[in-house]
Amino acid sequence: MPDIAVVSLSGGLDSCVAAAIAKAEGYDLALLHADYGQLTEKRERRAFQEIAEFFAVPEKRRLCIPFTNLNLIGGSALTDPSIALPEGDLAREGVPVSYVPFRNAHLLATAVSWAEVIGAKRIYVGFVEEDSSGYPDCREIFLKAFEQAANLGTRPETRLEMVAPLIHMKKSEIVAKGLSLGAPLHLTWSCYQGEEKACGRCDSCLLRLRGFKEAGSPDPIPYSQIPDEFRI
Amino acid sequence: MPDIAVVSLSGGLDSCVAAAIAKAEGYDLALLHADYGQLTEKRERRAFQEIAEFFAVPEKRRLCIPFTNLNLIGGSALTDPSIALPEGDLAREGVPVSYVPFRNAHLLATAVSWAEVIGAKRIYVGFVEEDSSGYPDCREIFLKAFEQAANLGTRPETRLEMVAPLIHMKKSEIVAKGLSLGAPLHLTWSCYQGEEKACGRCDSCLLRLRGFKEAGSPDPIPYSQIPDEFRI
Repeated sequence: MPDIAVVSLSGGLDSCVAAAIAKAEGYDLALLHADYGQLTEKRERRAFQEIAEFFAVPEKRRLCIPFTNLNLIGGSALTDPSIALPEGDLAREGVPVSYVPFRNAHLLATAVSWAEVIGAKRIYVGFVEEDSSGYPDCREIFLKAFEQAANLGTRPETRLEMVAPLIHMKKSEIVAKGLSLGAPLHLTWSCYQGEEKACGRCDSCLLRLRGFKEAGSPDPIPYSQIPDEFRI
Repeated sequence: MPDIAVVSLSGGLDSCVAAAIAKAEGYDLALLHADYGQLTEKRERRAFQEIAEFFAVPEKRRLCIPFTNLNLIGGSALTDPSIALPEGDLAREGVPVSYVPFRNAHLLATAVSWAEVIGAKRIYVGFVEEDSSGYPDCREIFLKAFEQAANLGTRPETRLEMVAPLIHMKKSEIVAKGLSLGAPLHLTWSCYQGEEKACGRCDSCLLRLRGFKEAGSPDPIPYSQIPDEFRI
């Protein structure tokens, strides 16, 4: 029996590639999806389920969790409709308004609790530090600190390794890695605004489009518009 | 304006004394209560609200959070009715079946998210290590590791201090501290089984009764029965 790995799978590009890597490294997948009241949750949930189908993950190894707490707490453009999402400026500095306060700690805590109950050995996340949006809770230094907290705060026999295989990759390298592993990139969803078609304007769309452009491969999902600089 | 402290307030004895200490140290209280599907949540919630009233904490500084994730994940006698709660044996070794996998990380993560949004400087918890039930996520070493993760995983300007004023106290010292501060111990609830009267048999009741006994003061809450050795 292969060991189990919990993979935090938002439905986006990065976590899908992280899942493909966990699979390629020989783990049975247990897929965790967080609903923290983000505006495009319905579309992300669909992506999660379709990717789970693609990897033939059984129902009992799929967990969709409502993080009502983050929704109640607010403080982010992703969870509070009164905070506007900015469009299209990847050069901004500092922590963006789409940062959901300490969100990834909630995600990791849930992954740890589930891993402890089902006996998983690893937790894979699609965190990206280098070419990312500047979220403090996507950094390797945070992940390693959380890994230490996880191993101190669980049963003595529970030993968990947190794996972020994309952490130092550029988006184009992630796209290339996904393509090389046959990851179902066509099923992923990254847009913070659209549900039928990706908007092609939000930070998340621009990062993704730039990644595909630099990887020399067209993005297989539909867009309302694609800025000229990112067309292939 | 005093600084704000988020206090994790279960409604039990320890967290009530932690809240009294935060208040005595000059902080404005923001009270956080977790509903993780524990069997006596309804009674605990009442205790939370009554303690919040006692401390005159305004509604907007009270947060009751449903932790649906822990309930879905199970793995504990507190969240899964099919796992029996043992009665009355404080001498058992190891992690007890009432341990909710990594629960306190969820609690702390929520406290951190809320603290970041409302600008709180400290997070007070009623963790007790010495005289406690053997939960790995109640230990100081875990709390300190989590504090580090919290400061790495939030905005650069967010600096949070995690304070566990009871961590090295015996239960009798906690009772004495609470009495000396005028904490509303009569409003607290610790029993894992009963809702009208505390059972006087579960671990939590026995720890509490022993604490009051050793502090030389009667426990002000009603019990279905009190073992002879703990009568005053």
